[in-house]
Amino acid sequence: MTAEIICVGTELLLGDIVNTNAQFLSKELAELGISVMHQHVIGDNVARLKELVLQAKQRSDLLVFSGGLGPTEDDLTKETVADAFGDTLHFDEEEWQKIESFFARTGRTPTPNNRKQAMVPTHGYKLPNAHGTAPGAWFAADGHAAALMPGVPREMKAMWAEQVRPRLEQGQHCTIRSSTLRVLGGESSIAAKVGPLFAAENPTAAIYCKTGECEIRLTARAENAPEAEAACRAGVARFREILGDAAYDVDVPGLEYTVVHALQAAGLHVATAESCTGGLVAEKLTNVPGASEVFGFGFVSYAAQAKTKLLGVDPAMIERYNVVSGPVAAAMALGALDAAGAELAVGITGLAGPGGALPGKEVGTVYLAGADARTGQVWLERLALSGYLEREVIRARAALYALDMLRRMALGLPMADRVAVSRDTVKATPELLDI
Amino acid sequence: MTAEIICVGTELLLGDIVNTNAQFLSKELAELGISVMHQHVIGDNVARLKELVLQAKQRSDLLVFSGGLGPTEDDLTKETVADAFGDTLHFDEEEWQKIESFFARTGRTPTPNNRKQAMVPTHGYKLPNAHGTAPGAWFAADGHAAALMPGVPREMKAMWAEQVRPRLEQGQHCTIRSSTLRVLGGESSIAAKVGPLFAAENPTAAIYCKTGECEIRLTARAENAPEAEAACRAGVARFREILGDAAYDVDVPGLEYTVVHALQAAGLHVATAESCTGGLVAEKLTNVPGASEVFGFGFVSYAAQAKTKLLGVDPAMIERYNVVSGPVAAAMALGALDAAGAELAVGITGLAGPGGALPGKEVGTVYLAGADARTGQVWLERLALSGYLEREVIRARAALYALDMLRRMALGLPMADRVAVSRDTVKATPELLDI
Repeated sequence: MTAEIICVGTELLLGDIVNTNAQFLSKELAELGISVMHQHVIGDNVARLKELVLQAKQRSDLLVFSGGLGPTEDDLTKETVADAFGDTLHFDEEEWQKIESFFARTGRTPTPNNRKQAMVPTHGYKLPNAHGTAPGAWFAADGHAAALMPGVPREMKAMWAEQVRPRLEQGQHCTIRSSTLRVLGGESSIAAKVGPLFAAENPTAAIYCKTGECEIRLTARAENAPEAEAACRAGVARFREILGDAAYDVDVPGLEYTVVHALQAAGLHVATAESCTGGLVAEKLTNVPGASEVFGFGFVSYAAQAKTKLLGVDPAMIERYNVVSGPVAAAMALGALDAAGAELAVGITGLAGPGGALPGKEVGTVYLAGADARTGQVWLERLALSGYLEREVIRARAALYALDMLRRMALGLPMADRVAVSRDTVKATPELLDI
Repeated sequence: MTAEIICVGTELLLGDIVNTNAQFLSKELAELGISVMHQHVIGDNVARLKELVLQAKQRSDLLVFSGGLGPTEDDLTKETVADAFGDTLHFDEEEWQKIESFFARTGRTPTPNNRKQAMVPTHGYKLPNAHGTAPGAWFAADGHAAALMPGVPREMKAMWAEQVRPRLEQGQHCTIRSSTLRVLGGESSIAAKVGPLFAAENPTAAIYCKTGECEIRLTARAENAPEAEAACRAGVARFREILGDAAYDVDVPGLEYTVVHALQAAGLHVATAESCTGGLVAEKLTNVPGASEVFGFGFVSYAAQAKTKLLGVDPAMIERYNVVSGPVAAAMALGALDAAGAELAVGITGLAGPGGALPGKEVGTVYLAGADARTGQVWLERLALSGYLEREVIRARAALYALDMLRRMALGLPMADRVAVSRDTVKATPELLDI
């Protein structure tokens, strides 16, 4: 089955907004096993729209539209597609009621133009819009079909999930489910380990690169939802078996969620002492609803005096080892731990650039320490993030590694080749941390 | 003049990446006064590509391509477009040298396939690639032209700015320059004030909505660069005259840059005391290169105990007025001011949701205090951000307002209807701050 995506909207042609609808629909159609051969963006121009619809209908089985369902006279997508599919539109009293009551709820009155939005296909189907005024439409003729949805992403996504996707699944006599496994590391290193698993057909797997991590999206098709979900779980398990604890969670927005959930489950509290990340780790943790159960104290000790005054880092230690050093990161973590009375803490100091490189400490050098009050242990890691990265990316990667250290401490995961010392060592023999 | 944008790449059709190139090119072409009638995305399929190129060439003056210039056998965009424009390709020794030395620098050897990338137009022009291996190409025939650029955004943007855009400006016998004015507030309130200015033709003006603010992009055309730049400046001045200090800066990435630059210029230092924003203000400030000159101490006092322990907020005040209150925000700002020894500080406490609403304090209620050690004054503002917004958006808006308060303190701008009290008042009669 082949498809084309047609997005209607002058704001896209002017570059006012980026076309995220096309990406969303492409990804969803790929999951359904439907090949997208073309994406188009076109304005509210009937002649050009008609030419495109007729061409697209001729060469593709399914046309998926977003946009063009507005109330103004320019919005003629529904009329144009109805015509191409040999259908007509008629006024739908039920949809009109919905439009009127939607306006009433927001204290407004619909204009006569809004009646256009209540026009629905005569032979095809209307697609109810749970989140806005304009219903969508489904037309079918000669073995071809067209789905018309609103351009507002929230409305489009809901209509896709509730109306269009189930209709397509039904046509394929199957149910499709997806799960996203999140994995720390770059695409090439992950692909080197699990490359062959991407050849599997059910579930299929696709990898998407993010900053310092990747998403692996598994998509299974089966006769019913429980079977499709079980197939997804089995696929996830195969990846996890090989990837180990680099694969950190399933269907979460990011590592900070995994960390907050792990801390909640273990009844632990965390404190942060940040220099080069400037509050990014705290910001990420507190963006997770319920973070207040596990996080109370964060320090952005950007200046050397702040490290001394707020976290008790010995100025002589800063003088001797430099502010970007293992001993200082460890002392920062311990200072935060004690000031907050938390069980866990991280300390982060590094060079985010663009300036500030020192001999032996290039831009991108970051020291990351994790302190654990339960064991009295301090873990230390030196990151060499590429100096070619932008300041923002160096900070984002350092924050990700800090969250990973918290995850490992909270869940008792292996620390690999991170340096481990006791908290007394940090004071007594800091040279051991000068890595 | 009319144009079509054609992006070539299977990763776009699969939804692996979002098509930011199409937006960039659309915006740039609009600035050049060239009407974009179609955007397309297509895969590496010669038959489909050829069909599209012939259609597009027939109806539009200019075809702008990104992608499809890679070394694999599938990448046949250059060959296909050359054919459609009656041109041929030939091997270019100079480009091949560049490719070989590019590979040598990264310790690799080019494959025979890479020779394809050194093929350039015989009658048209090659477009040198300053940031990658593949040169672009320019074809022209019958009053139509095609510009082929790489798909990698960084390479494409550089080639556009250095090669394609100047060529188009030359064709129009003019020079075009743009400036972006950043303005606090929503699109409708801004448009209500300066609506008529958007009708101007040189410079033209377009508005783009962001979280809590808008960008107004002015684009001027003139015979030469100094004249175009002067016209931009004059356009910016007309907007500033009406918008006043809501228009905060020109050609900066965000308000945090304006704040850091203002603090640097005035030799001031700032400290932050954040609760609901969880470190976001500190994170934004420290993302500006050179922030260490003006920012040294940040507190993320997420727990009530942190507000007491780190910032000296009286527990009885928290008990009496609630942790989300004017007195607490003011005491947080003063606590940060004193702990940091800074001239300026902000304190932020609020309800970012989704849970936690209190009687009289809905989700989205945020108290924002600014303390100024130079005058001993404290400014207070209660924000009522809509409870319909997501947690992340409430936090982002609160951070933006906090940065604006810092800007106003640093630059001595009017504080409008924000409450002003002396620092003694915060302790002696906190009820005055219970707004």
